[in-house]
Amino acid sequence: MNVDGKEMRPIWFDPDTETVRVIDQRWLPHELIIKDLTHVDEVIHAIREMVVRGAPLIGATGALGVYVILVQKGNRGMDDAWFSSQCDDLKNARPTATNLRWGVNRVQAKVMEKTSHETRIQAALDESLAIMEEEADNCRKIGTHGLELIRETADRNPGRPVNILTHCNAGWLACIEYGTATAPIYAAHDAGIPVHVWVDETRPLNQGARLTAWELGKHGVPHTVITDNAGGHLMQHGRVDLVIVGTDRTTRTGDVANKIGTYLKALAARDNDIPFYVALPASTFDWDLTDGIREIPIEERDPDEIRYVRGWHDDAMIQVRITPMDSPAANHAFDVTPARLVTGFITERGVCDASESAITALYADRFKND
Amino acid sequence: MNVDGKEMRPIWFDPDTETVRVIDQRWLPHELIIKDLTHVDEVIHAIREMVVRGAPLIGATGALGVYVILVQKGNRGMDDAWFSSQCDDLKNARPTATNLRWGVNRVQAKVMEKTSHETRIQAALDESLAIMEEEADNCRKIGTHGLELIRETADRNPGRPVNILTHCNAGWLACIEYGTATAPIYAAHDAGIPVHVWVDETRPLNQGARLTAWELGKHGVPHTVITDNAGGHLMQHGRVDLVIVGTDRTTRTGDVANKIGTYLKALAARDNDIPFYVALPASTFDWDLTDGIREIPIEERDPDEIRYVRGWHDDAMIQVRITPMDSPAANHAFDVTPARLVTGFITERGVCDASESAITALYADRFKND
Repeated sequence: MNVDGKEMRPIWFDPDTETVRVIDQRWLPHELIIKDLTHVDEVIHAIREMVVRGAPLIGATGALGVYVILVQKGNRGMDDAWFSSQCDDLKNARPTATNLRWGVNRVQAKVMEKTSHETRIQAALDESLAIMEEEADNCRKIGTHGLELIRETADRNPGRPVNILTHCNAGWLACIEYGTATAPIYAAHDAGIPVHVWVDETRPLNQGARLTAWELGKHGVPHTVITDNAGGHLMQHGRVDLVIVGTDRTTRTGDVANKIGTYLKALAARDNDIPFYVALPASTFDWDLTDGIREIPIEERDPDEIRYVRGWHDDAMIQVRITPMDSPAANHAFDVTPARLVTGFITERGVCDASESAITALYADRFKND
Repeated sequence: MNVDGKEMRPIWFDPDTETVRVIDQRWLPHELIIKDLTHVDEVIHAIREMVVRGAPLIGATGALGVYVILVQKGNRGMDDAWFSSQCDDLKNARPTATNLRWGVNRVQAKVMEKTSHETRIQAALDESLAIMEEEADNCRKIGTHGLELIRETADRNPGRPVNILTHCNAGWLACIEYGTATAPIYAAHDAGIPVHVWVDETRPLNQGARLTAWELGKHGVPHTVITDNAGGHLMQHGRVDLVIVGTDRTTRTGDVANKIGTYLKALAARDNDIPFYVALPASTFDWDLTDGIREIPIEERDPDEIRYVRGWHDDAMIQVRITPMDSPAANHAFDVTPARLVTGFITERGVCDASESAITALYADRFKND
C-alpha cells in the first residue's frame, strides 16, 4: 500500500540480496524501520516480539520462515529431522493465530515433495510467495464484498459519512495488502463513499492508535482515535453504524478469537442493534474447532506490557511506567467472541452468517476430503 | 487511610496554617505531592486538571472551595453578587459529577444565612468539614452493607478468594475515607475474608492502574492490574465473582454515569450472569433526572489525553506520544450504564435494586418536601 508515494508491504522477499525483509512495526508510527530476517531465530523473535503481527502476516512470515530455515547460516541441508524440528519451533512462536501453523505446514509439505536441497529451497520460496499473493488477493476480494455492506449503509444514511468502529489493527500491516477489516474501508473510500473510522487504541500494545491510525492517515481515510473504553458510549449515541474487526482464529462454528476487548465491542454492538462483522480469509478458519471459548488457546504475554507504555518522547522510543512498582498485572492477549454476537463474516468468497452451516456451505470444498 | 503508617485523607483543612490541602493525584503512584489551595482559581484548576477527582472528593473540594472564596486574597467580603458568581464558576469546573454542584450549593446556602464576613467564613468551614465527616461516615456504612454481599459470595465459594472487578478509582482517594466501590473490599479484607481485585487500568488517565492499585497495595489487598479490554475474557472464564464500581451521577431511575468503559463491563457482567453493583452515597444521586443517557452531560476532555500517556521514566513524570502526529482523537470521559444492567446499589442506607421505586423508597425522606 501507499506510504508517502512508495508502494510497500509489511513483508517482502528482496531478490537482489535474497533476503526476507519486514517493516519493524514496533517503531510505528514514529519511525519506519526495515529489518532483515536471515535466521529462524530472527523469524521467531520477529513473530514473538511483534515486529510482525496480525494473523495473515504471521502466516506469511511463518511461510517465508521455512525458506529462511533452509538457507540460514549453519543449515543442515537434507537433515529432515532437523528441518522438521526447526519448523515446529517456528509454529510454536505464538499460540493463538492459526495462520502461523497453516502457513508453515503448507510450505513444509511442498518442501518435503522435493529431493534435493536446492529444489527444496526453490519450493519453499515459490510456495511462500504464492501464499503471499493469494493472501493479498483474498484481502482484495474481502474488500470487494465488504464494500457492498458499506455502500448499503451509506445509502440508508445519505449526506453523512458511514461511521465504522474497528479494534486493533487488521489493516494491510497485519496482512499483505488492503488488510482484512480495513479492506472494505479502503475499497469504500476509494469508491468515493464517505467513511469515518473510530480507531480503538487497543491496549496494551496500542496497535489501533499506532498502526491503524497510521495506515488510515497515509491513505487519507478520515479517522478518530478513541480509548478502548469509548465504543459503547459512541454506539449508545448513534455514532457508530458498523463494527468490522479481524480475527486470529475462527472456529467452523463461528466463534471468533481476536485481540482482547473485541468481545466487549460485540456486546455493545448487540445491545445497540449495530451490525458486527468479522473480516477474514480462509486461512484464519480453524476447521477442527467447534467451541472457541473452550478450545482456542489464549496467549498470556509479559505483564510488563501492561505496567509500562511505550511511546515517543524527545525523538526516541521509550517506555513509561504506569502502575506502582509492586502491583502485579495480567496480560491475556486475545478473547473469544461467541458466534451468537457476530452478524456475519466477510470472506474472500463473500459474506456469510456466523453459523456452522453457513461457513461450511461457503467452504464446502474444504470438507470433501475430511 | 493508611499510607506507610501515616493516616491520610485526599483533602484536609490544616488548622495551623488555615489552609486547604490536597494530595496531587496526578503524581501517584510515583510521588506523593501535597498542594495548597488558597484561591478559587487554584480550586477550579485542581478539579479541572484532576489534581483531585472522584465524585465525593469533588463534592468535598467544592464545599471547601466556598471557604477558600471567602478567605482568598482580594476577596470582596460581603459582596453577595461577587460571591455568587465565584460559586457559579466553581460549580462549572466539571460537568458530570453531581456532587460538585451539591457540595457548593449546600455550603453556599449556609453562608447566606450569616450576616457578617467572619461568621460566613466560619459557617463555610463548619459546613464543609461537616460534609467531609458525613461523606467519610457514608463510605464506612457503604462498606458495612457491601461487606455482606462479599461475605455471601465467599460462603458460596469456600477455599478461594472472592474475585472482584472494579473500574477507575472509586477508592478513598476519590472520597474522604474507605471509598465507595472499595469500601466493601477494605471491609471484607479487614474482616479476614480473602479477596482479590481485578483493577481495570482505566484509560486515558489510568486511575485504576495508578490510584486503585496504589491504594490497594498500601492497604495490603491482593490485586492484579489488567487492561480495560480484559474484563470480558476473565468473566467468560469464571474468574470474576462480582463487579463493584462507583458513579459520578446516578438518576432517580438508576441510570449510572461513571468513568467511560463502565457500560462495557456491565454488559459483560450481564452476559456472564455476574452481579454488577454500584456503590454510592446519597450525594451522588441526581433526584431530578430520569433518563441518564439523554440527560446526564458527558464531559469531553482534551484529545491529547488520548494521544499521549503520562508515566514515570528516569525518576520523572513525562508523557510519551502514542498516535501519529496528525491523527485526531476524541475523549469522552464518562458513559451511562442503564439501570437494566445494574444488579443493585450499595448505599449508606443499605443495598437496593436499580429501580426508581426501590431508590425513592430508600430515600423517601428526600422527597417529602418535593
